[in-house]
Amino acid sequence: MPQTVTFNLDTYLRDRKQEVEAALDASIAVIYPEKIYESMRYSLMAGGKRLRPILCLAACELLGGDRAVAMPTACAMEMVHTMSLIHDDLPAMDNDDFRRGKLTNHKVYGDDIAILAGDALLAYAFEFIAKETKGVAAERVLKTIANLGNAVAATGLVGGQVVDLECEGQLDVTAETLNFIHIHKTAALLKSCVICGALLAGANDTDIARLSTYANSIGLAFQIIDDILDITATSEQLGKTAGKDIAAQKVTYPSLWGLETSRQKAQELVEQAKAQLVSYGDAALPLMAIADYITARQN
Amino acid sequence: MPQTVTFNLDTYLRDRKQEVEAALDASIAVIYPEKIYESMRYSLMAGGKRLRPILCLAACELLGGDRAVAMPTACAMEMVHTMSLIHDDLPAMDNDDFRRGKLTNHKVYGDDIAILAGDALLAYAFEFIAKETKGVAAERVLKTIANLGNAVAATGLVGGQVVDLECEGQLDVTAETLNFIHIHKTAALLKSCVICGALLAGANDTDIARLSTYANSIGLAFQIIDDILDITATSEQLGKTAGKDIAAQKVTYPSLWGLETSRQKAQELVEQAKAQLVSYGDAALPLMAIADYITARQN
Repeated sequence: MPQTVTFNLDTYLRDRKQEVEAALDASIAVIYPEKIYESMRYSLMAGGKRLRPILCLAACELLGGDRAVAMPTACAMEMVHTMSLIHDDLPAMDNDDFRRGKLTNHKVYGDDIAILAGDALLAYAFEFIAKETKGVAAERVLKTIANLGNAVAATGLVGGQVVDLECEGQLDVTAETLNFIHIHKTAALLKSCVICGALLAGANDTDIARLSTYANSIGLAFQIIDDILDITATSEQLGKTAGKDIAAQKVTYPSLWGLETSRQKAQELVEQAKAQLVSYGDAALPLMAIADYITARQN
Repeated sequence: MPQTVTFNLDTYLRDRKQEVEAALDASIAVIYPEKIYESMRYSLMAGGKRLRPILCLAACELLGGDRAVAMPTACAMEMVHTMSLIHDDLPAMDNDDFRRGKLTNHKVYGDDIAILAGDALLAYAFEFIAKETKGVAAERVLKTIANLGNAVAATGLVGGQVVDLECEGQLDVTAETLNFIHIHKTAALLKSCVICGALLAGANDTDIARLSTYANSIGLAFQIIDDILDITATSEQLGKTAGKDIAAQKVTYPSLWGLETSRQKAQELVEQAKAQLVSYGDAALPLMAIADYITARQN
């Protein structure tokens, strides 16, 4: 009789999230000048699914690594993600008052402190990886830092954000441009989470290639679902303003393809992502389940 | 007859500046989306004395290291410094229109791009060190990255900036608080330049202790002279608005101590700095001369 492996994603995500939040909580103490540390912690500890750090830990474990080795990097990913949210929400950028059901950082601490809190989180993320990663060759840690830097700089997240800003109010945005935006703005950091977790576990080139495809696919699927939810979900469900894309006359996947085709494309991407992981057997169950979760999620 | 070593600081600074600017120029190519790379280059290539990268290279050579090993880190220091200037100049912060005689980044590219250019420079700085440093053990590079992160985050530059913002318009700022501001806002990055250059050359604990005192002292002296020049120099000489501190009713070293005592304190700090380097002999001539230059400079 073949052995049946059951995998409970809910339990898995809940446990990992708890672990990540404990590590994040311990990563920043409030010292003088208190206001900046409080501001950093306000956004860092504001909840969210912690999907990025969880992906980082899962990729490390996929390749037989101890997830404790990847925990500092996982925390750094959340710090960088938080920085990008704080800066995106600023009046000079998307001008958002709410995020995850709470006032945005600059609404609480002021624009100046919000800018500085983002800068501090970004710089600290790299310090944290360099200082706190234990039990792995320094060369791997350097590769991890280089990968994260590339994923955040103009070659990654920032580049995607710039094209997104340029496209605001433009109605002739092509699918190609939209892909550029989201491959950089959303997928780049998700990919860095997966690749860095894998690098710390000693990934070879084949692992990196497979996991890059996996991450790009779930990254794009994630964004397509985000666009869909902006139309179909309420602000309450999302914890942020719904219907913003339509209000801003923003070209999105649903506006290009319609809701139904968008859902199909997201599903196809998730299947592509999962196909990359087949050869890893049961070790890939968490990353497979996370890919499915991305299309099934309601917020 | 004792050998006389002549050291020409003008030639030295000019040569090193040229070398650093060539490396900076090569560090960022303009690719799609062009606007963000142009914005990063606009501020990164806007001149300045390049004192930070030069200090980094000089500290590496002081300990017998090849300065080519420290060049990526030296460039990263200037990227981080440029990020801090771009963000400091934003309307939400100091709201400056001119810097080094040119329009500030946000006046040319807009507040949104300026925020993103700073973020990209900061992330890229770490990527650049991790990827481009050659010919030295990975452990040393990791220490360098950790040191730089610490010097920029809330424990360094950002922390200094936060206290500086809190003190705005306050007239009862103590010398202790003023020291906190400048040890973090100015000296932390200068110190990181010197320490990281030294770390890459294989500094021991004694070297690090001496060079830390050297860097803290020249960092504070640098700020005292900055405060003095804000009063005594013209905007044209400074390439930025002069008399800003008085206009903003800002407590400065001259406002606490008077001009003459401030000049004396700066001179004392420079002597303290130089005293740390005596045991290195002629190898310390560049760092000695740079310390003197700080009090003699006119802009």
